[in-house]
Amino acid sequence: MGDSNCNGTHSNKKALLSDPQLFEAQFDELVTELSVRDFADPALADALARLREVLVYNSPGGKRNRGLSVIGTLRELLPPAQLTQDTVQRALLVGWCIELLQAFFLVADDIMDGSVTRRGQPCWYKKDGIGLDAINDSFLLEGSIYRLLRRHCRDQPYYVRLLELFTEVTFQTELGQALDLMTAPPGQVDLNRFTIERYKAIVKYKTAFYSFYLPVAAAMYIAGIESEVEHNNAKNILLEMGEFFQIQDDYLDCYGDPAVTGKIGTDIQDNKCSWLVVTALETMTPEQRAELEGCYGRHDDACVEKVKALYNTLQMPTLYHKYEEESYKRLQKLIACHAQNLPHSVFLNFAEKIYKRIK
Amino acid sequence: MGDSNCNGTHSNKKALLSDPQLFEAQFDELVTELSVRDFADPALADALARLREVLVYNSPGGKRNRGLSVIGTLRELLPPAQLTQDTVQRALLVGWCIELLQAFFLVADDIMDGSVTRRGQPCWYKKDGIGLDAINDSFLLEGSIYRLLRRHCRDQPYYVRLLELFTEVTFQTELGQALDLMTAPPGQVDLNRFTIERYKAIVKYKTAFYSFYLPVAAAMYIAGIESEVEHNNAKNILLEMGEFFQIQDDYLDCYGDPAVTGKIGTDIQDNKCSWLVVTALETMTPEQRAELEGCYGRHDDACVEKVKALYNTLQMPTLYHKYEEESYKRLQKLIACHAQNLPHSVFLNFAEKIYKRIK
Repeated sequence: MGDSNCNGTHSNKKALLSDPQLFEAQFDELVTELSVRDFADPALADALARLREVLVYNSPGGKRNRGLSVIGTLRELLPPAQLTQDTVQRALLVGWCIELLQAFFLVADDIMDGSVTRRGQPCWYKKDGIGLDAINDSFLLEGSIYRLLRRHCRDQPYYVRLLELFTEVTFQTELGQALDLMTAPPGQVDLNRFTIERYKAIVKYKTAFYSFYLPVAAAMYIAGIESEVEHNNAKNILLEMGEFFQIQDDYLDCYGDPAVTGKIGTDIQDNKCSWLVVTALETMTPEQRAELEGCYGRHDDACVEKVKALYNTLQMPTLYHKYEEESYKRLQKLIACHAQNLPHSVFLNFAEKIYKRIK
Repeated sequence: MGDSNCNGTHSNKKALLSDPQLFEAQFDELVTELSVRDFADPALADALARLREVLVYNSPGGKRNRGLSVIGTLRELLPPAQLTQDTVQRALLVGWCIELLQAFFLVADDIMDGSVTRRGQPCWYKKDGIGLDAINDSFLLEGSIYRLLRRHCRDQPYYVRLLELFTEVTFQTELGQALDLMTAPPGQVDLNRFTIERYKAIVKYKTAFYSFYLPVAAAMYIAGIESEVEHNNAKNILLEMGEFFQIQDDYLDCYGDPAVTGKIGTDIQDNKCSWLVVTALETMTPEQRAELEGCYGRHDDACVEKVKALYNTLQMPTLYHKYEEESYKRLQKLIACHAQNLPHSVFLNFAEKIYKRIK
């Protein structure tokens, strides 16, 4: 009686918290699990202390949209009665695995890109005494995913599906990063490499699979939806969404209001294979191209302004709004055609949650 | 009829080849599988060409002992009648997964250690135009493991066991690398960090799990041996073996004949937490320690000679031979006690195959 009462109180307390609150609350637990309870060998103490440090520093203080999308999608897929507290906790945990996957990529990408800051703090590898040891730290972030899945989902019917999903999406992202690195090597400007086909491939593999398909697919497996057809339908919609939002992101990097977006764009300086440069290249004259060659990928303010002026001359805002409208229509059509067995709200809510700017 | 004849010939031809020959023959097939057949999307062509390059350059021309140990062990565990050609091919494939895991670690370790050459050729990251992009290449090597396991073992009863085994051993190795990096940071000499406990922990986690336990454990799962007790018994024996051989390796780095070992040791110059320095530290006087402080981890020949003279004064060869004998006795006892249900030849053959110097 005492026990059941206690559980009742506990469960009621938890029920009062929102998903984002539950999600944040789970993090400390998960760090302790990985860095204290998972390996009992005292000889590992120093390595596990390092793991804790890496987890805490690189658990980005971002919007957690990817991680929260797992529970968000699951709530659309299952009736509340089927969503036990254990299932909710597991969905939140799988959400954290996606955040860890992202942390793994970001720690490594920052080294490869030579970045200096990330979300307002120094990149992990830039911290005193870290340097290239951050490579092994990124491995530890990735490895933590499989420790957590094993501890929490081993007895679930969808365990193997999650293992395969995470390893597959990780590999796709790495292939996307390989494409990105060879297309826009930091410091080497070569506009011939910037085509719309290449742009789309980079966005799809480097970003869309892990940011858009992964959280929804994970929720589908947790809900017992295994059919390849259903997963392919969801994938088609979500990859289109991923492309749409990356293009929007590229547009806002140049045309967004820093007071609203919270960041000052540097895609031009960083020689990024952005939708703007790729699309501008398709319509510009040889003279304009020659000018762009001299200005793109430079940190000189005058050069940046010249590129921006060129974008304006080429009416990039108009082209963007045209693309935006078309893509949105395509998305609606895809949802209508492909999401027959899945609630449309899965896709619409997901989009809103990730960017809050689809309307 | 024609077909069955054809298969017969095929199978007979294969039967004439030794396991090492079959293993080498499988590599081209595996590269084509990963870089051509696995992903049909033409947009990935450049990324897959890069993957092929990475696989070919970093598939070390070494002894392949780890990879070959899977089929070697499996032949001890299963009667020939149960070893179908498919099973042999799968065991070879799992062996390649271990070689890929090693390649993943080596490509990354070379960057973290600032190494210049690896097995007589430049380290991958040292090649023109590669640099830190090699970090993503190392990820591709790791990711290839799970692509191959999925393609070849998905329908096998031991599939999940292999997924868990590879992810677990990978994480253990990464924890070992974390320990190693904090104990012997390239360029920073601090002898206080060099203790025998730390040495043993690094050897166990960074090397022994993936080089010794992993191939045997994989073969056990393929043979249908899942019991935790059996795996723990094998682990105890194999980790002791791993420690024994690493200590031998450290000894030979200083005292081996380069004409026999094929390499010139640089552990002293590289500030390595070697068994020799750790053991010497246990018996030396404060004066000797002060001298060592001034000489260890330096590339100066006179310094190296001073360290070697100190090792000789402290009778390291005698201490080593004493350790060797004790450890070998311990190993025999472990095999006698713990390998009740496993053929002892598994362990004895394995040791011979890895180093050809246990007698």
